[in-house]
Amino acid sequence: MTDSSAPRVVLAYSGGLDTSVAIRWLAEHKGYETIALAIDVGQAAPGEMDRVQQRALDCGAVESLVVDAKDEFADDFVAPAVAANALYMGKYPLVSALSRPIITRHLVRVAQEHGADAIAHGCTGKGNDQVRFEVTAMAVAPDLAVEAPIREWGLSRDGAIAWARERDIPIPVSKGSAYSIDENLWGRTAECGILEDPWAQPPEEVYERSAALAETPDEPEELTLAFEDGLPVALDGEKLALRELIAEVDRRAGRHGVGRIDMVEDRLVGIKSREIYECPGAVTILAAHRDLEDLCLEQELAQEKRGLESRYAQIVYNGLWYTPLKRAIDAFVAETQRFVAGEVRVQLFKGHAAVVGRRSERGLYDLSLATYDEADQFDQSQAEGFVKLWGLPTKVWAQRQGHL
Amino acid sequence: MTDSSAPRVVLAYSGGLDTSVAIRWLAEHKGYETIALAIDVGQAAPGEMDRVQQRALDCGAVESLVVDAKDEFADDFVAPAVAANALYMGKYPLVSALSRPIITRHLVRVAQEHGADAIAHGCTGKGNDQVRFEVTAMAVAPDLAVEAPIREWGLSRDGAIAWARERDIPIPVSKGSAYSIDENLWGRTAECGILEDPWAQPPEEVYERSAALAETPDEPEELTLAFEDGLPVALDGEKLALRELIAEVDRRAGRHGVGRIDMVEDRLVGIKSREIYECPGAVTILAAHRDLEDLCLEQELAQEKRGLESRYAQIVYNGLWYTPLKRAIDAFVAETQRFVAGEVRVQLFKGHAAVVGRRSERGLYDLSLATYDEADQFDQSQAEGFVKLWGLPTKVWAQRQGHL
Amino acid sequence: MTDSSAPRVVLAYSGGLDTSVAIRWLAEHKGYETIALAIDVGQAAPGEMDRVQQRALDCGAVESLVVDAKDEFADDFVAPAVAANALYMGKYPLVSALSRPIITRHLVRVAQEHGADAIAHGCTGKGNDQVRFEVTAMAVAPDLAVEAPIREWGLSRDGAIAWARERDIPIPVSKGSAYSIDENLWGRTAECGILEDPWAQPPEEVYERSAALAETPDEPEELTLAFEDGLPVALDGEKLALRELIAEVDRRAGRHGVGRIDMVEDRLVGIKSREIYECPGAVTILAAHRDLEDLCLEQELAQEKRGLESRYAQIVYNGLWYTPLKRAIDAFVAETQRFVAGEVRVQLFKGHAAVVGRRSERGLYDLSLATYDEADQFDQSQAEGFVKLWGLPTKVWAQRQGHL
Amino acid sequence: MTDSSAPRVVLAYSGGLDTSVAIRWLAEHKGYETIALAIDVGQAAPGEMDRVQQRALDCGAVESLVVDAKDEFADDFVAPAVAANALYMGKYPLVSALSRPIITRHLVRVAQEHGADAIAHGCTGKGNDQVRFEVTAMAVAPDLAVEAPIREWGLSRDGAIAWARERDIPIPVSKGSAYSIDENLWGRTAECGILEDPWAQPPEEVYERSAALAETPDEPEELTLAFEDGLPVALDGEKLALRELIAEVDRRAGRHGVGRIDMVEDRLVGIKSREIYECPGAVTILAAHRDLEDLCLEQELAQEKRGLESRYAQIVYNGLWYTPLKRAIDAFVAETQRFVAGEVRVQLFKGHAAVVGRRSERGLYDLSLATYDEADQFDQSQAEGFVKLWGLPTKVWAQRQGHL
Repeated sequence: MTDSSAPRVVLAYSGGLDTSVAIRWLAEHKGYETIALAIDVGQAAPGEMDRVQQRALDCGAVESLVVDAKDEFADDFVAPAVAANALYMGKYPLVSALSRPIITRHLVRVAQEHGADAIAHGCTGKGNDQVRFEVTAMAVAPDLAVEAPIREWGLSRDGAIAWARERDIPIPVSKGSAYSIDENLWGRTAECGILEDPWAQPPEEVYERSAALAETPDEPEELTLAFEDGLPVALDGEKLALRELIAEVDRRAGRHGVGRIDMVEDRLVGIKSREIYECPGAVTILAAHRDLEDLCLEQELAQEKRGLESRYAQIVYNGLWYTPLKRAIDAFVAETQRFVAGEVRVQLFKGHAAVVGRRSERGLYDLSLATYDEADQFDQSQAEGFVKLWGLPTKVWAQRQGHL
Repeated sequence: MTDSSAPRVVLAYSGGLDTSVAIRWLAEHKGYETIALAIDVGQAAPGEMDRVQQRALDCGAVESLVVDAKDEFADDFVAPAVAANALYMGKYPLVSALSRPIITRHLVRVAQEHGADAIAHGCTGKGNDQVRFEVTAMAVAPDLAVEAPIREWGLSRDGAIAWARERDIPIPVSKGSAYSIDENLWGRTAECGILEDPWAQPPEEVYERSAALAETPDEPEELTLAFEDGLPVALDGEKLALRELIAEVDRRAGRHGVGRIDMVEDRLVGIKSREIYECPGAVTILAAHRDLEDLCLEQELAQEKRGLESRYAQIVYNGLWYTPLKRAIDAFVAETQRFVAGEVRVQLFKGHAAVVGRRSERGLYDLSLATYDEADQFDQSQAEGFVKLWGLPTKVWAQRQGHL
Repeated sequence: MTDSSAPRVVLAYSGGLDTSVAIRWLAEHKGYETIALAIDVGQAAPGEMDRVQQRALDCGAVESLVVDAKDEFADDFVAPAVAANALYMGKYPLVSALSRPIITRHLVRVAQEHGADAIAHGCTGKGNDQVRFEVTAMAVAPDLAVEAPIREWGLSRDGAIAWARERDIPIPVSKGSAYSIDENLWGRTAECGILEDPWAQPPEEVYERSAALAETPDEPEELTLAFEDGLPVALDGEKLALRELIAEVDRRAGRHGVGRIDMVEDRLVGIKSREIYECPGAVTILAAHRDLEDLCLEQELAQEKRGLESRYAQIVYNGLWYTPLKRAIDAFVAETQRFVAGEVRVQLFKGHAAVVGRRSERGLYDLSLATYDEADQFDQSQAEGFVKLWGLPTKVWAQRQGHL
Repeated sequence: MTDSSAPRVVLAYSGGLDTSVAIRWLAEHKGYETIALAIDVGQAAPGEMDRVQQRALDCGAVESLVVDAKDEFADDFVAPAVAANALYMGKYPLVSALSRPIITRHLVRVAQEHGADAIAHGCTGKGNDQVRFEVTAMAVAPDLAVEAPIREWGLSRDGAIAWARERDIPIPVSKGSAYSIDENLWGRTAECGILEDPWAQPPEEVYERSAALAETPDEPEELTLAFEDGLPVALDGEKLALRELIAEVDRRAGRHGVGRIDMVEDRLVGIKSREIYECPGAVTILAAHRDLEDLCLEQELAQEKRGLESRYAQIVYNGLWYTPLKRAIDAFVAETQRFVAGEVRVQLFKGHAAVVGRRSERGLYDLSLATYDEADQFDQSQAEGFVKLWGLPTKVWAQRQGHL
């Protein structure tokens, strides 16, 4: 079935409808032989990747590869996002935005190893993921071609299904699946269907990783996260690899209904969309990390970092992972994280991941300065001069301009 | 008891221990006759302000005034903070920071009306409130003297009680009250005592305006907030003055346990402190407002506004309410709020004020662009060119520098 | 020659090669009748606009209009840029970026008045001006079509000349003109030719509005600019309309060689280009305005404004003149300019526009605070407390973390 | 004359009036024996430090030390400021602000080596230098006492002279020196006297390091600076240590009248002051560095860096050199400088240090993308889609809100 003279493309294969039909479309319209590449970044149930791998072959791929990238994803992509408290628009933990660069990295690697002529993704032309795939490719392999069959084809979902049936392509979907889902270790996203009405409350069926509040335990559960260099390293005293720690926190927090996010989001391509996210682990870990930073970071530094965090989330959201600006902010952030070490108590209860205590040997909270009891060592006599000079520009302004 | 030749001071009087003893101290140490001024910004139970007024006289004030400033506080101080989504360190709704400028405004007004020689506050030298009082005074009356008897005196709590007892001053406190509390329409703050240990979970007794999660209703409650020009104007279809609306949302959200905040905070005077806030109304209204902005604000504008919001919260926290920078940011924000109009559905349940729907006639969500169904009018063919040029700086960088 | 059923397009006509051939191309390839519209924003010598108007007709336009927009350009476009000290990348006074919105405004107005079906510009696909034309059109007439014949055609300069000669189009260029020039009241731009080598010093022939240093007067010349509300209103004591003032300052400063800018610039479309600007008036006025702000703006405000200025220049450069973010920053800036009033002495000499003195009745420089002589009223005793608390976060950091 | 039981203080000794009388004052009022420490950061003519060393002994110091810190100053303090293009308020190259941390570092080192009890500086209470000395001390030796005799004493200049004469202290000043001067390798500052009138043009006598324009050569001089890792490493092809390079550029640029700065400045202590700086070398090197960055930095990175540069200059100006925020920005900047390598042609002429050419093997200027001639490889067909999506948020805004 392979044609040694045909060009080859490495396709980011998810096992879903779009990438399944893309294999045939790339052959018919572009003459490509497709190497399917499925990357496990934590989205798959046990055994599922094997089925995905087989499905690609059934759909016509000349080769089908699966890579377990879960640890790499946690260590190289989620970790810097934790350090940067990355939340796009202050809300979205960048679930898909973090996985596209790692997937593209592997696409490029496989393309280079197999001497392929191009890589391909299954994104449409109106989302962010096309940008993330292609700009990552420009950054790590600027001269490699990128195919975007779904965007180029422009077929509707129903059209794609009909096209596939005509050709006996064993497509994986039933017509009834109402949402478009993406998932990995750091969270789960849902869009389409009823969710496109931003006034409508999302139906419970949208959610999978977090319990409905009415079904969460009636007793709170506390967990203690230990951090070193800004990263969580132990859960309730047990050292865990980051991937394991995230998965375990996600499971426990999800059981308490933590991590649902419902937002109207600004896409890079210029439109607003309504998105539903479930990120029990991400929400819990970021809350703990931010709280520990409030204890450990000097205030001017903390303020500047918060400004950069917002920019960081934006550039990662916009596909600019492998860029010099991302590197430079990472360098800033890494310098700040050296002292973010300590423990955070988080109470999971009824959808909350509430920090109820934090401590650190290197924390900048100084009881002898903060206390109002007899141990107070703060020299209050310094305050008068401070206030007078702090207010001096305002005073001069008031005398000269303020009444106007 | 009044001495027509004695200098007069207008004291911000709360009815608590510190300002009660300050009246006598100002007389003994500075020769002042004190006009006590109590401002109701929403902290008082019915009838309480009368008792406060009498207490000042009992403690030696030559005059005792009470001002109901609740509507003024809502309209002139809380409203701009809502428009600016003002949260210091992303967390604290500036409860006390908002009330100090209005109190100082009234102190100055009364001082001018009564020909007083100074105003006075009861703050210590290690908090933010001294700054807020004094810098506000520098701004609105740059040549008026400000007395800070508690800071100057430097007496401990126990010392003050003993001093008052020696003089038969009818001080209002029992020794058992463990926390230092400040409260107004926009929320309630607590510090001191066990709270000074940031590792210790706050005891339930700290809270007053929000129910414990275990005691909240087992059914969710939904409320609908209507906004015009960025401000909430109606609750469940009923038009309300801002003060009434805040109070009612606060009551309903508090019943569901919404609005508890536990944080380590950076004070302007250079120390970290552990603070507990309860702001059911503020947290609910700000969540709704931010969500509606995500629908109504153009994305570049929204991003810039988020940056300014953080700065705005900081300057208000730092006492710079009456400053030209505050005015300029207000002008920016006011321009943005012209289109923040619509309705937001908020579900109150188990401590959450979760936005579950939002709509606006002027919203920028465009279903015909966002949808993935047949109504799609987004021209996907534009995307390829967009992505190519968006990624071009990265591509050139990758070719010249990226591999190094 | 007009065909009442043919669609009509209003073309931004400069009189140059590209827009001259575009008239015929729009007819041949798109079936358009062209209404040529030339806008005078200060680029034209006396009488030149008449010749431009005739040339459009000679080239086949069905109608040819000329608008004198010099005062409108000064008052509505340059004035806010002065208030915002708008310098892209800290260097470029946005000469062309300011004129594109006004030109597009008039294109849309004429299209609406004449019932035209589209507007058109003569920009290529690799510059910024296409973005400025088209995004402005999206903002002021979102449903009006925009044609870009030069971009769509993709013809080289030589090709366009040959194409025009075949058709006897009376094109205006000799093959020898080496640079691509754009010009208006606020400055003059040059690119192409030898300038594309960023290592090569620009030849003197590139410049037209500023004298070579070797040929400037050997005596300095001083001018005094008076400002009100942040805008220059008088020159050496004589009140002038903004347009006149700019033109006169430009002439005088140009004689002294002021205003040459040589830079490598980041274009929105993702490439770097080498640009030469001549802006004697802009450089002089901006220097005076910034200096007066240093005297009149409170320091926290000034600092925040500087950050917004950079963003403002960027959005204007990127074509976002008619956007809500632009409006919001204008509101911020307008609030700051209320107190920017006074006089600035500028010495023009050997390419410098050096501020040598500034004064303002509302200035915040207070000699009694600043002086080191006997009139000093600054209370130095306040400084110790100020420094102690200002440094306190650093001190605590040093004790806990600084040694690591 | 030394008293083994007396406490010892290490005084930053300049050889000027204030620190000369401070030695005796510290003895009389505080009982200190003074170790004078003079640091040469480039301010001294050959042999001058020897005279300074002797003068301290003549004034009563028990020990007098001189340290040549010129190379350390260049490498550890000026170099990061170059990388960060540090200009306070966009104008002032931080001359004194850079030297205070290094001086304080040495004060602390000597205090520790000699077992001294305190360090001391000769600053008044209304300038920035007191903050820089003391906050640096808090950072590097948080428990060491700092004395500020001049601030504490509060004596006027004339009073100090009289006081010294009564005691036969061999003070170094004639009454005629009109300005307060500070100087080092990176520039020279002047204030006081006639300069305190911001409307008055500074008299020529203020300047020392830069020629008056009327006396500069009538022929331009070109120099070529080579950069590696963001720092100048060679001048006209000759490798030089940074200190030597700065000194030589300063000399040559000064001869052409480069580097005079006249500004109204915002001091941390809340006042505006009028300052005159002369920085021929700094102005030249910074212009070259910024220009090379325009060639070598990716545009999003460059934009973010410019924002941080302003913050960086502010924190250094405000005495926060040894702080975690400074470190974090340094980390950001260092990451950006890896690719800032190449050559810059600077023409010195009549007060200008004008960049007339720049080149870099790693530059991001790509002639094949930028050119308008036949070699053009920019695919203009991508532009239409780019512009359409770039403008889409504006278009939707215009349709929904723009007309209001």
